[in-house]
Amino acid sequence: MSGRINLAAVEAAPLQADFDNLAAITEPDRPWTRRSFTPTFLKGRDYLKARFEEEGLSVRLDPAGNLIGRLEGSEPGVIMTGSHSDTVPSGGRFDGIAGIVCGLAAIRALKTSGYKPRHTIELVDFLAEEPSEWGLSCVGSRGMAGALGPTELALPGPDQERLDAAIDRIGGDTSALGRPLRDDIRAFVEIHIEQGPVLEAEDVPIGIVTGIAGIGRLKVRFQGIAAHAGTAPMPMRQDAGLSAARFMLAIRDGAQTLANAGRGHFTATTGVVHVEPNGANVVPGSAEVIVDIRAEDDGAMDTFMADAEDMARAAADAEGCTVSVTQLSRTFAVPCDPRLQATIADAADHLGLTSRPLASGAGHDAAFVARLAPAAMIFVPSKDGRSHCPEEWTDTADFVSAANLLAETLMRLDQS
Amino acid sequence: MSGRINLAAVEAAPLQADFDNLAAITEPDRPWTRRSFTPTFLKGRDYLKARFEEEGLSVRLDPAGNLIGRLEGSEPGVIMTGSHSDTVPSGGRFDGIAGIVCGLAAIRALKTSGYKPRHTIELVDFLAEEPSEWGLSCVGSRGMAGALGPTELALPGPDQERLDAAIDRIGGDTSALGRPLRDDIRAFVEIHIEQGPVLEAEDVPIGIVTGIAGIGRLKVRFQGIAAHAGTAPMPMRQDAGLSAARFMLAIRDGAQTLANAGRGHFTATTGVVHVEPNGANVVPGSAEVIVDIRAEDDGAMDTFMADAEDMARAAADAEGCTVSVTQLSRTFAVPCDPRLQATIADAADHLGLTSRPLASGAGHDAAFVARLAPAAMIFVPSKDGRSHCPEEWTDTADFVSAANLLAETLMRLDQS
Repeated sequence: MSGRINLAAVEAAPLQADFDNLAAITEPDRPWTRRSFTPTFLKGRDYLKARFEEEGLSVRLDPAGNLIGRLEGSEPGVIMTGSHSDTVPSGGRFDGIAGIVCGLAAIRALKTSGYKPRHTIELVDFLAEEPSEWGLSCVGSRGMAGALGPTELALPGPDQERLDAAIDRIGGDTSALGRPLRDDIRAFVEIHIEQGPVLEAEDVPIGIVTGIAGIGRLKVRFQGIAAHAGTAPMPMRQDAGLSAARFMLAIRDGAQTLANAGRGHFTATTGVVHVEPNGANVVPGSAEVIVDIRAEDDGAMDTFMADAEDMARAAADAEGCTVSVTQLSRTFAVPCDPRLQATIADAADHLGLTSRPLASGAGHDAAFVARLAPAAMIFVPSKDGRSHCPEEWTDTADFVSAANLLAETLMRLDQS
Repeated sequence: MSGRINLAAVEAAPLQADFDNLAAITEPDRPWTRRSFTPTFLKGRDYLKARFEEEGLSVRLDPAGNLIGRLEGSEPGVIMTGSHSDTVPSGGRFDGIAGIVCGLAAIRALKTSGYKPRHTIELVDFLAEEPSEWGLSCVGSRGMAGALGPTELALPGPDQERLDAAIDRIGGDTSALGRPLRDDIRAFVEIHIEQGPVLEAEDVPIGIVTGIAGIGRLKVRFQGIAAHAGTAPMPMRQDAGLSAARFMLAIRDGAQTLANAGRGHFTATTGVVHVEPNGANVVPGSAEVIVDIRAEDDGAMDTFMADAEDMARAAADAEGCTVSVTQLSRTFAVPCDPRLQATIADAADHLGLTSRPLASGAGHDAAFVARLAPAAMIFVPSKDGRSHCPEEWTDTADFVSAANLLAETLMRLDQS
């Protein structure tokens, strides 16, 4: 059948088995770790390739090293889903394998239901989504989108292996990179764990991602004068640590205000703090703070980056210090496709699944695929909002719901 | 002559030569370093021994490893001066050799003037005043005061050498330690650089130390919840780094208030700050701050230590964190002897030297010698208040003034 039908429900058991089997493919001394390009990672891919084939997909590697399983349709055009199988060191069981395992479960449900897709459905394991030893994240989705140029491909990694050599080693063909690899994608939908606390706190099983926040990073260095903690009288100090403390609180207050301003998701974090010389008996002579800023609205990012410089100057002045502010990086926000969001929302309603719109503060492959095609994401709850750590957890029931939603969504997209 | 006379002025040249010669005795790759118990330190002591003998002093090591030069008097009782010849790693040229070099210059002036002391005058190089590799400071003055017991003597140092073995190795006799070594000291006066900015800022050449501050150390550990910097919404965070920032500012405000309260010298410093995991994309889950508190008034120290706990709890509460406060250490303030202070002040007036009372925020051997006898200190200005670093500087003219004052003071004490 190729019309819209009532799909069979996703089975929990094979989905659970995939998670368990993949969890076992880890560096044994630090679960759960499958670092991209390593033998452990390739072992995970061997498992996925076998499973893709078991579910009737034809499997290939594209030039960017992405593993692609393909369920052929009768008409041109591809509807794509997927995520990534690499992890951070000592990461979790679900980021980002959830998007592949749920994709497999959804395709299995489509097939079990006898649904014959008009468009080809592709399930992708994007290469090296997490920041890799080559200093780059989203390697495979960048490559697919034509965003891996000579600079990126020349990045050196472990044992001085260049990134292009590493991609070729695992089966890619970097001679074909540097331009978009695809013009046939009609839509892309990625399932991912939320990695935040919102869905769990509101007891909502499905997040429909409104956009992927842009990320800005500032390095702020305060310079005061190191002095003896016992002999420098309080009024004669230029304590760079206190400038840093003032600045951290100002950043939070400013971010809180912007987060409440109705301009979408906004956060700012001072996660890195170094004071020097960091001795108990020395007034800090310098201090460095790294600010991480996430904004769904690029204008809000611009505003805050400018404000942060003013905050830094005020914090320095108040303690008789000087300050320098360096922009370390800046990416722009990627809105998810509104029509795809609506399709997912309708599908969720149809299945009786509560959902809410939610921004992604983290980066994802979908942000690069969005350069090629309409893209959207489905989030599932993360227990205690935790991620990138062994405690990362999502109940199987939530994955089953998301896989059911993905199957329904893929069918609706195939029909539209 | 043994009555009070007009003393010959201290000569700058030999004093300057002593500083230059001792500066040359350093670990060559990191001037200026003479770490206690090392061959370089012992080379410095060989120089001092030769110089003591050149100025007519008889030289010995006491059981605590202190090098003592002695100018015999005609009556019982000792008037003592001195400081220490060891340094911190990559320290300065004057802390604490200034007190020995100026002592030598003062004794030379007494002898040049034909002054015959009634009491014996001793010039002491106290062993290991700076925190040593054995984890203890003021080793020699502790030993002289009877404050080196079995616990301290068993401390392990480099190559697992115990402190008692190290003291014995350099010529001490630790079997005699554990009780006060002296009951014959009538007065002790130590010259030291200020290590702070006050004398230079006020253009006053002489500081007469009112007391040596007690030192308290608190370790304050905030526990929040680590979270993804992009996905944890601002209002749902428990950011331990922000608790630390609040606490640092509260400590400074509290210290400022106490410093202005007329209860003597008071400082509090948050020189050590660690946030964890200290990653740009992670909301800090925990943060640790070490507070260094210096108080001339022990009651002010008590008050502040209790207040600091309240400040820590308030800073934790404000960010939804918890906190634990640990007292790492606590020493009590040591007031300098008021009659000795008056004698020094009178001597300074007699010599036309401007002086001011000044507390010592740093620890000194005088604090331990004060357990045996009336003790006082004379401070000289430190350029930019700097110390424990290669930039440490005091003009020779200031040392000459201090040595003249010491000679005059020793004579007055000898007469009284």
